[in-house]
Amino acid sequence: MTEAFDAVDLITIKRDRGELTTAQIDWLIEAYTRGFVADEQMSAFAMAVLLNGMTRSEIRDLTLAMIASGERLDFSGLDKATTDKHSTGGVGDKITLPLAPLVASFGVAVPQLSGRGLGHTGGTLDKLESIAGWRADVTPEAMLAQLADVGAVICAAGSGLAPADKKLYALRDTTGTVEAIPLIASSIMSKKIAEGTSALVLDVKFGEGAFMKDIDRARELARTMVDLGRDAGVTTTALLTDMSVPLGLTIGNALEVRESLEVLEGGGPSDVVELTIALAAEMLASAGVTDADPAAALADGRAMDVWRRMIEAQGGDASAPLPRARHSEVVTASRDGILTRQQALPFGIAAWRLGAGRARQGDAVSAGAGVELHAKPGDRVAAGAPLFTLHADDEARIPRALEAVDGAWEIGDDAPAERPLIAEAIR
Amino acid sequence: MTEAFDAVDLITIKRDRGELTTAQIDWLIEAYTRGFVADEQMSAFAMAVLLNGMTRSEIRDLTLAMIASGERLDFSGLDKATTDKHSTGGVGDKITLPLAPLVASFGVAVPQLSGRGLGHTGGTLDKLESIAGWRADVTPEAMLAQLADVGAVICAAGSGLAPADKKLYALRDTTGTVEAIPLIASSIMSKKIAEGTSALVLDVKFGEGAFMKDIDRARELARTMVDLGRDAGVTTTALLTDMSVPLGLTIGNALEVRESLEVLEGGGPSDVVELTIALAAEMLASAGVTDADPAAALADGRAMDVWRRMIEAQGGDASAPLPRARHSEVVTASRDGILTRQQALPFGIAAWRLGAGRARQGDAVSAGAGVELHAKPGDRVAAGAPLFTLHADDEARIPRALEAVDGAWEIGDDAPAERPLIAEAIR
Repeated sequence: MTEAFDAVDLITIKRDRGELTTAQIDWLIEAYTRGFVADEQMSAFAMAVLLNGMTRSEIRDLTLAMIASGERLDFSGLDKATTDKHSTGGVGDKITLPLAPLVASFGVAVPQLSGRGLGHTGGTLDKLESIAGWRADVTPEAMLAQLADVGAVICAAGSGLAPADKKLYALRDTTGTVEAIPLIASSIMSKKIAEGTSALVLDVKFGEGAFMKDIDRARELARTMVDLGRDAGVTTTALLTDMSVPLGLTIGNALEVRESLEVLEGGGPSDVVELTIALAAEMLASAGVTDADPAAALADGRAMDVWRRMIEAQGGDASAPLPRARHSEVVTASRDGILTRQQALPFGIAAWRLGAGRARQGDAVSAGAGVELHAKPGDRVAAGAPLFTLHADDEARIPRALEAVDGAWEIGDDAPAERPLIAEAIR
Repeated sequence: MTEAFDAVDLITIKRDRGELTTAQIDWLIEAYTRGFVADEQMSAFAMAVLLNGMTRSEIRDLTLAMIASGERLDFSGLDKATTDKHSTGGVGDKITLPLAPLVASFGVAVPQLSGRGLGHTGGTLDKLESIAGWRADVTPEAMLAQLADVGAVICAAGSGLAPADKKLYALRDTTGTVEAIPLIASSIMSKKIAEGTSALVLDVKFGEGAFMKDIDRARELARTMVDLGRDAGVTTTALLTDMSVPLGLTIGNALEVRESLEVLEGGGPSDVVELTIALAAEMLASAGVTDADPAAALADGRAMDVWRRMIEAQGGDASAPLPRARHSEVVTASRDGILTRQQALPFGIAAWRLGAGRARQGDAVSAGAGVELHAKPGDRVAAGAPLFTLHADDEARIPRALEAVDGAWEIGDDAPAERPLIAEAIR
């Protein structure tokens, strides 16, 4: 640390709506990572940021300081463009699974570092771990080789990337400071930039099942991250997508892999296909490929070929049957009519309670557990027809899952207003 | 704790400008005192309070919760009314010394719990400790006996009063959250109410040498504390007083005792006399004595009699000569003219650097060190006449004290605008 500041002075500047310099932010993040700035100082700072905001250059400095706190991956040796996707998290969001091999099938490299789930939001690694033999941990060297050979890798982020972010994120979680847009944006972007991708597409969710409930906050977050990417030399675009109903027809680890395979076979639910193709087009464009036809690559099996090679490169058996839960319970329609409501958050919580998610870091998850939907809002249903099925290894989990979705769906007479899945693009 | 809350939920309510209930505040303060709520959670909460404020009932609940965290003194057995004074702190503010015996000379009890100085603000106990033999520590029983007999006691607050405040104050000091009016008000008032007085007069300072630089903030703090006192059943009034120039002609421990003795002898600088009499009138009125003539009690020696008995009751030798510093340096006027400026804060810092104050809790202070002023703003001075004298036991301290006052005083041709010492009363 070349210059020393006083933590109280820096907190006070932000508290009084001032702007911190690059040197001040560098010092704060480095001193916090090393333990010279205490947790109680950093949480007061985070609350001041939440309430008073940060300027674009402060957010850039914060992101760069968090990147500088750890390692950086480097894919510049690769003779392909690299592009990556990040989703802010939703219920039934399995898009990464078909998307990464689809984009790679056009000769673009997709280094997709992913996480495990916590709470009602599923984790991409948990989903893939339902495939027999598949391993999430890949060394940087193996990652580079797989990108050169297969073109796509979905793996666990090493703990060396942005350790300051890891420490700050844990602190924010216990101090009511998670919701600060500058902190969310810098947390996501520091990891994505440290990961070494040259282009990035963000899927920023809004709506009842998303972290950002309203589209205005989602747009602000998306704009902040797009600016941040550009300032750091990473071509970044964002789609704002609706997360008020679950994405697709499955929520749960193996259930979502199965649905992803349907998409890779040229089928699958229309909303999952629509979002996969839209994000693929964005990712390909960000990597300079503008004449691609992602739908064709799903239909003719090119994407599926990459999927198989990607799974097998990480030890997975792409042909092995996927696990199924031991118990299930079907909920049926009590009357004829139209499904008018199906709320994402309660269905996400139900899947979590069935065993698909974890309450604490390190808990095991059930591969087969989750919710299968048989109808989506707008669908006509007949009395007695199945509406959704709950799956669990432990039958005792079913009643609390049923409780979670109580009142979260409704059958009426009039079709609900159609909501576009993709609301806006921010480039 | 009858009801349990989640710290993150309570932080979030305040962060989002909501109002906490009595039960929530009680839980938060008790859980923090016991260590169930962590420092990093409390500092995020304090920052949210600083930026979003608290309602009058929240401030009352916070104050009562801090009182409930410790002991309470009880003077209800005394057959006299009790009244106390609190000053938010200023440079050369020795008013407590003549004031307590003056008020007690009218038959009202003054239980004055005081503190030691930290930084440039002097502590009342440090000043009295320059009197040979005087002891700051008095048991609650001895305090009651002295109030019954002498009528006035100035002593150290026991550590059992409002321990939650002590813990929160230390946290605020390192997290940039000292300046929150709800937290300042509840900190001061929790100790004063726990101390058991039935009436309280606040001397809320504003101006360059005060904690509150502008009168609007000082007024807001004063109103908040007056409301708080009333809500807790303590008759509370406040004077807003100017602290842009040092109070009186001395800054330093024994120097201020000497000046206090001049006031008790019927003399002393006019500003010190004015404020002593005004605060005495407020204190006496708050205790139901409305026909008193405090100026007469200074002139005829009644207040001095109480002073001697008060000092001797705590082991002090009221006749012993006061310590003097070993070294002094006189600063003289470079030209004929009128003293137009004399800034409180730099002179306070000079006294501190000369040894009158301490940098850390537990440091020793020099009894004789400090600054003696020979002119006040508006006074005509002749070239070569002494303007002020610096006193120190350690000669090496003088240069840095001179640096502190460099530019803090000025000789001009036109008399400065007169500023009233007492700007407003809030009752």
